[in-house]
Amino acid sequence: MVGGGAGAFIGKVHRDAARLAGGVELVAGAFSSRPTKSREDGILLGLAPDRAYASWREMLEGESARPAGERADFVSICTPPDLHFEIARACLAAGFDVMCEKPLTRTAEEAEELLACARRSRRVFGLMHPYVGYPMVKLARDLVAHGELGRVAKIVVVYPQGSFRRIDWTKPLTPRQQWQRDPKRHGVSGCMADIGVHAANLAEYVTGLKIRQLLSDMARFTNGPLDDDGAAFLRFDKGARGVLLASKVATGEANPLRIHVYGEKKSLFWRQDNPDALTISSPFAPAETWTRGSAYVAAASPAAARATRLPAGHPEGFVEAFANTYRNFCDTIRAKRARRKPTGLESDFPGVREGVRGMRFVEAMVASAGRGNVWVSV
Amino acid sequence: MVGGGAGAFIGKVHRDAARLAGGVELVAGAFSSRPTKSREDGILLGLAPDRAYASWREMLEGESARPAGERADFVSICTPPDLHFEIARACLAAGFDVMCEKPLTRTAEEAEELLACARRSRRVFGLMHPYVGYPMVKLARDLVAHGELGRVAKIVVVYPQGSFRRIDWTKPLTPRQQWQRDPKRHGVSGCMADIGVHAANLAEYVTGLKIRQLLSDMARFTNGPLDDDGAAFLRFDKGARGVLLASKVATGEANPLRIHVYGEKKSLFWRQDNPDALTISSPFAPAETWTRGSAYVAAASPAAARATRLPAGHPEGFVEAFANTYRNFCDTIRAKRARRKPTGLESDFPGVREGVRGMRFVEAMVASAGRGNVWVSV
Amino acid sequence: MVGGGAGAFIGKVHRDAARLAGGVELVAGAFSSRPTKSREDGILLGLAPDRAYASWREMLEGESARPAGERADFVSICTPPDLHFEIARACLAAGFDVMCEKPLTRTAEEAEELLACARRSRRVFGLMHPYVGYPMVKLARDLVAHGELGRVAKIVVVYPQGSFRRIDWTKPLTPRQQWQRDPKRHGVSGCMADIGVHAANLAEYVTGLKIRQLLSDMARFTNGPLDDDGAAFLRFDKGARGVLLASKVATGEANPLRIHVYGEKKSLFWRQDNPDALTISSPFAPAETWTRGSAYVAAASPAAARATRLPAGHPEGFVEAFANTYRNFCDTIRAKRARRKPTGLESDFPGVREGVRGMRFVEAMVASAGRGNVWVSV
Amino acid sequence: MVGGGAGAFIGKVHRDAARLAGGVELVAGAFSSRPTKSREDGILLGLAPDRAYASWREMLEGESARPAGERADFVSICTPPDLHFEIARACLAAGFDVMCEKPLTRTAEEAEELLACARRSRRVFGLMHPYVGYPMVKLARDLVAHGELGRVAKIVVVYPQGSFRRIDWTKPLTPRQQWQRDPKRHGVSGCMADIGVHAANLAEYVTGLKIRQLLSDMARFTNGPLDDDGAAFLRFDKGARGVLLASKVATGEANPLRIHVYGEKKSLFWRQDNPDALTISSPFAPAETWTRGSAYVAAASPAAARATRLPAGHPEGFVEAFANTYRNFCDTIRAKRARRKPTGLESDFPGVREGVRGMRFVEAMVASAGRGNVWVSV
Repeated sequence: MVGGGAGAFIGKVHRDAARLAGGVELVAGAFSSRPTKSREDGILLGLAPDRAYASWREMLEGESARPAGERADFVSICTPPDLHFEIARACLAAGFDVMCEKPLTRTAEEAEELLACARRSRRVFGLMHPYVGYPMVKLARDLVAHGELGRVAKIVVVYPQGSFRRIDWTKPLTPRQQWQRDPKRHGVSGCMADIGVHAANLAEYVTGLKIRQLLSDMARFTNGPLDDDGAAFLRFDKGARGVLLASKVATGEANPLRIHVYGEKKSLFWRQDNPDALTISSPFAPAETWTRGSAYVAAASPAAARATRLPAGHPEGFVEAFANTYRNFCDTIRAKRARRKPTGLESDFPGVREGVRGMRFVEAMVASAGRGNVWVSV
Repeated sequence: MVGGGAGAFIGKVHRDAARLAGGVELVAGAFSSRPTKSREDGILLGLAPDRAYASWREMLEGESARPAGERADFVSICTPPDLHFEIARACLAAGFDVMCEKPLTRTAEEAEELLACARRSRRVFGLMHPYVGYPMVKLARDLVAHGELGRVAKIVVVYPQGSFRRIDWTKPLTPRQQWQRDPKRHGVSGCMADIGVHAANLAEYVTGLKIRQLLSDMARFTNGPLDDDGAAFLRFDKGARGVLLASKVATGEANPLRIHVYGEKKSLFWRQDNPDALTISSPFAPAETWTRGSAYVAAASPAAARATRLPAGHPEGFVEAFANTYRNFCDTIRAKRARRKPTGLESDFPGVREGVRGMRFVEAMVASAGRGNVWVSV
Repeated sequence: MVGGGAGAFIGKVHRDAARLAGGVELVAGAFSSRPTKSREDGILLGLAPDRAYASWREMLEGESARPAGERADFVSICTPPDLHFEIARACLAAGFDVMCEKPLTRTAEEAEELLACARRSRRVFGLMHPYVGYPMVKLARDLVAHGELGRVAKIVVVYPQGSFRRIDWTKPLTPRQQWQRDPKRHGVSGCMADIGVHAANLAEYVTGLKIRQLLSDMARFTNGPLDDDGAAFLRFDKGARGVLLASKVATGEANPLRIHVYGEKKSLFWRQDNPDALTISSPFAPAETWTRGSAYVAAASPAAARATRLPAGHPEGFVEAFANTYRNFCDTIRAKRARRKPTGLESDFPGVREGVRGMRFVEAMVASAGRGNVWVSV
Repeated sequence: MVGGGAGAFIGKVHRDAARLAGGVELVAGAFSSRPTKSREDGILLGLAPDRAYASWREMLEGESARPAGERADFVSICTPPDLHFEIARACLAAGFDVMCEKPLTRTAEEAEELLACARRSRRVFGLMHPYVGYPMVKLARDLVAHGELGRVAKIVVVYPQGSFRRIDWTKPLTPRQQWQRDPKRHGVSGCMADIGVHAANLAEYVTGLKIRQLLSDMARFTNGPLDDDGAAFLRFDKGARGVLLASKVATGEANPLRIHVYGEKKSLFWRQDNPDALTISSPFAPAETWTRGSAYVAAASPAAARATRLPAGHPEGFVEAFANTYRNFCDTIRAKRARRKPTGLESDFPGVREGVRGMRFVEAMVASAGRGNVWVSV
């Protein structure tokens, strides 16, 4: 693991989720750009001292030097975005499979290059969009794919967060707050690169359609050079349209990412703060609430069934969604090592291709707003 | 009453609401463009035969001819939109106060002219946007006005309807479905003139801010020349921004109009299918659910208190919201007849000015989309 | 109308609802036990001075003396419970149909006698349990009757109110608070006679089963001689069991009466603060939310369809439920005057028989608790 | 670990939760009463072959024989209830700390004896009531303890499950379904020993009050000798009253355990299927929804803060509640080994005393119903 040291929220989720996914153990890491802290955090996390590295470069060297069966199986990259590209490329070059936090890179160009590296290296590359790891999101995708909604006409995806409204501007910003607001580290976008990409990925995952064009409106309500709020009109494949909203200044909101997909026959609705439910509405019949863990869900979606740990009525949450992504990523690695093609269920996790799409989406959002709200291809 | 004969949904709501508002009785009317049906419907609705008129022109003549104390006090116009302008103008000219269904007219130009007529005539003119008649919407407006949310930054208003997905296209359309899809009768817009105007009005009412510019994206998913779906980016006064969505093809949705207002300190949320609740969220405290009929609501908003008939926990709905609008309209008429200025509580109902704003909004929506999604002033 | 003068909550609801029901107009009344106030309130409510009576006795005399076509068609009794019996009996004796507020009387004995009077007089007698006037409650009843749930096994009905927690005990009680706490006026029970009867009536209405035995636990948390909280185990016909909870001291609750009916195949859930929805759950399929105003509701329940005024998505509430009860009551009167048997849809309202059952329920609750929580027949 | 082999639902949750709790690894186990399966499951779960034991007796012997630092630190007992007593007693005698599934034993007598053993052995004993591991349940307890609700008057706790309605009676029962219905294995009660104990424990945990007396009504709707549904009136300390409902035949319900606590000033509500929220209602102010992960929750309840892994808006669920219980249990073991008294936060998990209370509750439920629904002391 690189980054995500003691105190970092997402690093801990990666570790918890990977453990929950089964068969994954943290064996080596570099957790900070400061060598001493990097090593100390490693020790704190229970690593053997010789695998609590001072830097990610040292880690790659050290692990590569170990005999085949004793080196780390893959690398999880949880650093701020500016380091993703370089580290991921180096990992691939050194022959490691990679799980990377989003956004994949700072630019679409870097993302494309990473895609090329990944292809050349034939390594497995995972990108952490945890929301598509929720069982009911997988069910949603399968119901759409099976034509349950009819032809998809309209998609509304909304990701409202109030995190920037909780910042006390009279105090120094935390490191995370700093790099989230620094174009050199976070890239050309704030809100869109941070959470807009999740919304876009969710919409594409559930519908199986790609965003082909968008027209955006971006805003900056708090200090700093990057957007903290925005919206877009979307054009998908096959004539579907959509609207995307994402905000870091949605005062008082926690994290209620949600999606509506309106088909010609039925519609679906899912929201992250009630993740075990999926609602299917119809003009001609009662609305249906599908519940994770039920036999009828398993029958309709093997992917949802596979992503389910607990019976209906025992809530699952974010860490399980994360773990589901890790599990499929790991099973794909296992399949490749066993020299077999991973099944569709195993390869069901976002990867470098989704990362390229995400960065193109981010750049298109910025470009559309920058050029006076015009249509831009994604 | 003109229009809204037996079988028409909104005509009956007008009658029920006016009755519930108190002191209003249907005394005369013309209910159809077909003279015989017009008279028959009037009789059916319990009118005296000599006041069940064959046409609205006959009604205006007949009522005007009656002695002062025995003529209709005001005219409710519930016809399709193409007739609003002509009838309303004639009513004003004949000295009647007017309550008109939305959209006010087919064009902003007509609306402006009606505004001029109304001013000249010094008649009371009401426009039926029932949603702002809900007590909790009035509370929302008052909380915003009192600075409870801090400066308003962002407004999201969504009006998703699935009504056009319930149409059986293999059968002849009903008269209502026909005129809703006919530009000559419904004007330049379908969805926006029908329900988009409600959403825009709600946003302006709650925040006290005006939409100054918009950039729209309009769609047509079903047959017919008019839009049945659309969205817009909004620029309000004082730097506030917004997004508006309205759709007649939101498959499976009933009518869940909803609004989020995000201020710098707090946010509010209201939705029409749970109208007795208003949620106030904050970054630093538990979310609050304010309940209609409570003492603390009355303390915070005299307008909400006045619009409340039942104690907390006894649901009120659409007809009461409608009735609240009628009540204020009637009290304003009464005040004028008593030669006193209506109080702020009494004059709290949408009128011809809101109608002008609505038509400008509709035309701006159409113009923005028509010119390639550009910013248009409202 | 007797009782329910200016300021009385429930009297106004009766008037609003009756008006909304159609074809009902307040023509005469006695609104207070104080003659002057009685007459003044009548004038205030718009009555002709000679029909704003000083007392209910005077009203009965006055109205009876009027020619057949010009007298009140029926009497609504909205007084405190101690007067129901005497007034209702006199009305029946004088040949008037009667709509009475619950609880029907103070004792089951009085209720039985009233039943006998009503039968002898062949008058139409309505009892106001407004909750069974909700369309979705009627749908619930019809779904149960049609076997949708399978055999009914268990019923849980809960009526939690926090009203007694809102009383400021440092101030003099209002008249209503006084008679609600006075055994001479309210009878042997407080909470059970006030709201427990609604819960019991709802359970019997929805399931079509009668409560045969119960074992109660009654409590008194606030001052006064009467219960303000209680619960019961229930035995229904056909082996069904149930639990009933009712409370006036459920701090912070408004009025969320709710019912679960668990059948062998499916279950249903309805709650008054979301009255337009009915949830049907099954072990083997997604939960269904049926929405008032939908075509599939109308197809499943003509009674629900008849009780519906507005399309789906336009909330209806308490006053409409009340109005539905009035409408059926009035249609039954009309049928009888037209010398035809009322249809099942028309006679679908609670009457004196339900009043007898209610009073037996109340007395059984009191008896069971009083005798040390033993099983008592209802 | 004893019991909970491959395929057993709760065994896997124990393993996942313990891992998530941090610092816990499965090192030894006996997973079935069949020696071969026991060993095979152990291997499957990744144990060293010499620690995948054939029986729990062999496991205790084998582990006891290992050097101090290399033996299992504690034993998790996940067998059917009939084995809890014997295994737990043996574990304590062998010097192991114990985490046991509920119900603790088959009888209160056994539970008392286990309490005595645990005291004598000075071992740490945990009992798995996962629901009190939810952060918002801990917040609820702390708010009650700090007097936020005022004096507690009434508690309503409901645990409706539909699991027995999902059984296909035409097929052979699964082993779990068999022992759940077998008095020799499950003890004197079915539903109450299985889930009623959770409800009773939750009520006592949140309020800090003990159930002193109860009067029950028990039912059996499906085949078998044990109750599958029941209810009770409760008398708590300090005059508080309550009602408890639990059912395995609540058709269509998943697992929505919920609790209302009504104090003299405010009330609280929590439900397991929305575990990240706690609602506080008041007669005089808007209802508050407290959200897990918020700063104000942490300020009000250090125990909730400690039990929280993810920021607000990232759902946590059952496995985290479980993990919180494990974590406190393990921290208490660590404290004892470090020869210090565990802090209040560390010792916040149910133990053998709660197990005794649970079994007394179960026996009182059975006794009350068996003796004709009389009051029984707990």
